[in-house]
Amino acid sequence: MQMKYDNPNHGTNQPAVLAWEDLKKDSQGLVPVIIQDAENGEVLMMAYMNEQAYDDTLRTGMMHYYSRSRRQQWLKGETSGHYQYVLSLTADCDRDTLLAKIDQVGAACHTGSRSCFFQKIVERNREESLKREK
Amino acid sequence: MQMKYDNPNHGTNQPAVLAWEDLKKDSQGLVPVIIQDAENGEVLMMAYMNEQAYDDTLRTGMMHYYSRSRRQQWLKGETSGHYQYVLSLTADCDRDTLLAKIDQVGAACHTGSRSCFFQKIVERNREESLKREK
Repeated sequence: MQMKYDNPNHGTNQPAVLAWEDLKKDSQGLVPVIIQDAENGEVLMMAYMNEQAYDDTLRTGMMHYYSRSRRQQWLKGETSGHYQYVLSLTADCDRDTLLAKIDQVGAACHTGSRSCFFQKIVERNREESLKREK
Repeated sequence: MQMKYDNPNHGTNQPAVLAWEDLKKDSQGLVPVIIQDAENGEVLMMAYMNEQAYDDTLRTGMMHYYSRSRRQQWLKGETSGHYQYVLSLTADCDRDTLLAKIDQVGAACHTGSRSCFFQKIVERNREESLKREK
């Protein structure tokens, strides 16, 4: 699959606002990325990027990650067809976490679930939550 | 501040569905938690929990974290008043990441921003994103 755009600043010859070296890495040299459905705001998954994954994501507009278990960089959807097209990528205040808003093809989770977050630990309604004593 | 509820299964004497030992920890023994505004779906921040923070969050219904820089457990809002009240807590498929939907008092970010994610790296509209060649 070829993309008509390559770069977030396509046609301007401008580099990304934040380069890889501007980000704070964890002890493994990676940066966590939260993946959110751009359409309905659902948080779909969390994954990690190395420099190659970050650069490939910016260059292609498709989410790339680094698999800590397989120890290799991968294009999300490469085997499943469940590609993720980037609408925005944002760094947090201390530049150690990224948030990607994406168009998800199919399911984000390898289990077939749309979102990886499906094991509920706590749930309460707003009425219960508002029972707070001052 | 005292809470009228203590436990997600308040009154049932049931423990949380997933205990701390059921979660996969990172190399520092922590679990990352994505914080999402329950009302509008905005992703506000990411933080980390140790066992104490996890237990205190379940017990009180208020988000507690472990600060990696200060190396101590803390109640979010303790100094700022910007408490986070838990509406739901969910683990992902491989139980190494948590998602909390919360009621945020004031700003989540220490900079005063509502969300920590305000440094845009890439932004494109859906029309641009859809310019994909097959």
